Amino acid sequence: MIANKIMTLMTDFGDRDTYVGVMKGAIATINAQLQVIDLTHQIRPQNVAAGSFSLLSAYPYFPPETVHVAVVDPGVGSNRRGVAIKFTGGYIVCPDNGLCSGIIELESAIAAVELTNSKYWRSPNPSQTFHGRDIFAPVGAHLASGVPFTELGQEINPDSLVKLPLPKLEISEGYLSGCIQYIDYFGNLITNIPSDLVVDQTWQAIANGMTINSGSTYSDVGISESIAIVGSDGWVEIAVNRGNAQEKLRLNWGDAIAIKIKI
Amino acid sequence: MIANKIMTLMTDFGDRDTYVGVMKGAIATINAQLQVIDLTHQIRPQNVAAGSFSLLSAYPYFPPETVHVAVVDPGVGSNRRGVAIKFTGGYIVCPDNGLCSGIIELESAIAAVELTNSKYWRSPNPSQTFHGRDIFAPVGAHLASGVPFTELGQEINPDSLVKLPLPKLEISEGYLSGCIQYIDYFGNLITNIPSDLVVDQTWQAIANGMTINSGSTYSDVGISESIAIVGSDGWVEIAVNRGNAQEKLRLNWGDAIAIKIKI
Amino acid sequence: MIANKIMTLMTDFGDRDTYVGVMKGAIATINAQLQVIDLTHQIRPQNVAAGSFSLLSAYPYFPPETVHVAVVDPGVGSNRRGVAIKFTGGYIVCPDNGLCSGIIELESAIAAVELTNSKYWRSPNPSQTFHGRDIFAPVGAHLASGVPFTELGQEINPDSLVKLPLPKLEISEGYLSGCIQYIDYFGNLITNIPSDLVVDQTWQAIANGMTINSGSTYSDVGISESIAIVGSDGWVEIAVNRGNAQEKLRLNWGDAIAIKIKI
Repeated sequence: MIANKIMTLMTDFGDRDTYVGVMKGAIATINAQLQVIDLTHQIRPQNVAAGSFSLLSAYPYFPPETVHVAVVDPGVGSNRRGVAIKFTGGYIVCPDNGLCSGIIELESAIAAVELTNSKYWRSPNPSQTFHGRDIFAPVGAHLASGVPFTELGQEINPDSLVKLPLPKLEISEGYLSGCIQYIDYFGNLITNIPSDLVVDQTWQAIANGMTINSGSTYSDVGISESIAIVGSDGWVEIAVNRGNAQEKLRLNWGDAIAIKIKI
Repeated sequence: MIANKIMTLMTDFGDRDTYVGVMKGAIATINAQLQVIDLTHQIRPQNVAAGSFSLLSAYPYFPPETVHVAVVDPGVGSNRRGVAIKFTGGYIVCPDNGLCSGIIELESAIAAVELTNSKYWRSPNPSQTFHGRDIFAPVGAHLASGVPFTELGQEINPDSLVKLPLPKLEISEGYLSGCIQYIDYFGNLITNIPSDLVVDQTWQAIANGMTINSGSTYSDVGISESIAIVGSDGWVEIAVNRGNAQEKLRLNWGDAIAIKIKI
Repeated sequence: MIANKIMTLMTDFGDRDTYVGVMKGAIATINAQLQVIDLTHQIRPQNVAAGSFSLLSAYPYFPPETVHVAVVDPGVGSNRRGVAIKFTGGYIVCPDNGLCSGIIELESAIAAVELTNSKYWRSPNPSQTFHGRDIFAPVGAHLASGVPFTELGQEINPDSLVKLPLPKLEISEGYLSGCIQYIDYFGNLITNIPSDLVVDQTWQAIANGMTINSGSTYSDVGISESIAIVGSDGWVEIAVNRGNAQEKLRLNWGDAIAIKIKI
């Protein structure tokens, strides 16, 4: 007997409708014993880059072999491919639109298949607008239940997978130049600057003419004061102690952030 | 041994408070092995018609025998009945206020009981304001754990169940006249016109003086353009490719939509 | 073999990011069989008092031995302690910042430990900003999987736990004077006046110069009319039938509410 793998779901479907519940119904119809964990369903609608970042931020914390089903899919029903990708730390089942770009940057894909085998879909005639329910969730459920990866469809070259352009990062002597790649619910500004580049250094962040000193946690500064820290996922992050950095500093997605390192 | 059935929960409780968590605590106290799937808890507060539509849209995608507990209950504590209803595809446990109208339209109820047997409630003295926790969730948990349906209370005639008036649909030669019965998180306008009536035809939608051409999926039109499609749940739907049709077309719940079929 | 205990999670992390999903990944990495129930993740950001109330409102409805992991943690990374607390009805794992004040008021803590044993953390070097993922969820998962409570760290005196000041309640002959301690999603105003004090009495609520008659459930008054009732969690509550009391009565968190009892 093959033990079930854990499944996760990540979408931009929100929580107002029954779309996510219905995906879980499709999964339970295939295997009622599967454990399904929600990553989030509040990816900004149709924002594949935010989806890629969120998937990357969750992926390392799950057991190996976990099956992540990710659906942020503005091209549903067009000729974009559906794919499953095998990584060292788990599987991703998603539209081939760049959703895996972040993880591919972290570790190369071991193998990939295009989801051409309709035996593992909910029906051979999927709807044109809801592949999450009709293809991705069912394929994920079969994979998590022990169906071999290569059964899911035709093997494709992982190099052919769609990759998003990475947010720009420039590194020079004592100076790092990047941008805000994600803003979380608390208003913390998460940059694309890896924290490895600043750890054990004396450094400051510069954003929109403001200089923000670094520290190790929020409470190293007074209430409502700004601080630059090494975030919990390995990126330089700008925060406000017990406050909202996005609002206080009036910064937004994509805005430039620089780091000055004292040499 | 009787295998557990899958349970689902659907409410208008939102996600800010612990009300849904508490219902799951009441369920786990009865049977900690039950699998509970959330349909949504964001039904518009006290909007039984939206609840009926949402329940109908999820119901067909679950395994037979699934126990759906649905609580949109503006009349809690009044003399409205609590009921359990048996359908071909599963059970519904809910207040008798029309929440099942959509499903009853799809397939007749096989049997119904009024929830008079307090042995299956959380306590014989339920609160006056939270029957979800004290009656509906516990009854659902017992039913999903193998308690026979007829044990839950006194049998009633399914014809006596409260039914909502259906949104009006008029069919004439080459012309269908209905309305918007639901708007989803993406702003897609879901009508009450069954897609069977347009499939394999050449057709257009007309709303508020605008004519919207039909296609098969969002990306059949340019970005920000409107399209009328066969939605994933069997209703004619009006959408905007990578946009929000509710906002772009300034249409709302209940607004009239007509379909012109080229004969 | 020791049976798994049920776990719950309560945080102020919202649902936009993958933070809660990641906590569940950390739990599943320890024990993929654990059942994890969400209480809510919408505690008002960094509002420990709201967290304490919500935890108290959910705690009584779970099976004994349930492990509740609660993270509302403005002081993360500072020198505030992480603790696990044993009560008659279950365990709480949380920062020592007053989150358990409500439950401690209900029933005394039996024992408490400071979470000093890093063997049960995700790693001996936790991040400075996400103890939910790195300490609290893993410790909770080990406890729910059968690790003895006293293994989690050094025993501490339960009397040393941080307690929030209780909202003021004054009781005199025929008159109770309290305040609004919580407002729910529906706009119901939940006071800090225990309903034991009014049950079987004739009483009225007084707020901001308005007198509100008591009844037993919402529908005892007309639509859009105010009513004072015994709420489902044991507190006096002010509601509007099919409406929002917070908006209609223009009352807010902390505002004074008095009860006049007819003697």
